[in-house]
Amino acid sequence: MPAPIEFYFDFSSPYGYLASTRIDAIAAKHSRSVNWHPILLGVVFRATGAAPLAGVPLKGPYSARDMARTARLMGVPFKLPAKFPIATQAAARLMLWVQATDPHAARALAGALYRGYFGEGRDLSDAGVCADIAAQCGHEREQALAGLGEAAVKDRLRAEVDAAMARGVFGSPYFIVDGEPFWGADRLEQVERWLATGGW
Amino acid sequence: MPAPIEFYFDFSSPYGYLASTRIDAIAAKHSRSVNWHPILLGVVFRATGAAPLAGVPLKGPYSARDMARTARLMGVPFKLPAKFPIATQAAARLMLWVQATDPHAARALAGALYRGYFGEGRDLSDAGVCADIAAQCGHEREQALAGLGEAAVKDRLRAEVDAAMARGVFGSPYFIVDGEPFWGADRLEQVERWLATGGW
Repeated sequence: MPAPIEFYFDFSSPYGYLASTRIDAIAAKHSRSVNWHPILLGVVFRATGAAPLAGVPLKGPYSARDMARTARLMGVPFKLPAKFPIATQAAARLMLWVQATDPHAARALAGALYRGYFGEGRDLSDAGVCADIAAQCGHEREQALAGLGEAAVKDRLRAEVDAAMARGVFGSPYFIVDGEPFWGADRLEQVERWLATGGW
Repeated sequence: MPAPIEFYFDFSSPYGYLASTRIDAIAAKHSRSVNWHPILLGVVFRATGAAPLAGVPLKGPYSARDMARTARLMGVPFKLPAKFPIATQAAARLMLWVQATDPHAARALAGALYRGYFGEGRDLSDAGVCADIAAQCGHEREQALAGLGEAAVKDRLRAEVDAAMARGVFGSPYFIVDGEPFWGADRLEQVERWLATGGW
């Protein structure tokens, strides 16, 4: 069995959301699985000195237009939320809490969280909203809310972010395919070609 | 005759170089011409607070790898020069000096300057090197050297950079197609689709 694709993303990353709707299908075509890693870009940006897109002069407004245009082209529901960007600790911890016992359910939950934020404008920075979405995915709401607050889950998220930075991850989405790094939803085509050819 | 495509680029921009090898052919397929606008990213970055890619932690090393990988995929000769990034006033002024009397010759010169820097490692920050390349393109070397130093040419470059920023240009390459902005060599596919469909 060939190695899985490592997929790093932040739940507040529009291009991470767009890529998340495609990566599993691309991987499956090449008999690969995908390891989904929620990370915190805020922590990463403090280490690298990067700034969130939305606040950058000229680039911020352009990016809002580009995200919407690219989402339309991909046929993915997208509306930049009124509150953007947001802190995504609650969403990331919730996903890790589910992942510890059921990676497939965690994958489904991640899709629901992303759609909730970028498709429906639900505020993922609110742990209660995240727990509501977990409940819609069949988890027990109060257990989910307690789970995302567990110290062990918080530690695991910190470790995930540290491990990501140690591997060179500086943005979202970020993919590693057989050791080769790819950054950005606009690199999905190269990811697919790399899977098909083993590199060039 | 439909409006030309506006193409903004810095001679020290690897992705500008990659895009420059494709944009004319894409435009021609849709009966469009291209207006080539050399700009100075250093000036633009001072206004927007952006930093040159090369010096950004994690993102800098990744980008060097991505540029080379993308160039190989496109079949474009590329080697990140030892001196990178560089000041590109001399190259930009030389191009504008030629453009004032012969836009086609200026387009050919721009290609030769870009290939000289990213294909052959020639230092475009040196006005003498730029004049050498102009001579290889059939211009008179000493006239070219004098031309790129003319006050009127310097003024014109300043005006070009100001006009670009006024249109929202914050990076290289940057394209405007019938009022729609596209940033990055990885948006060439969207540029082509926009030309074919008029938007989506």
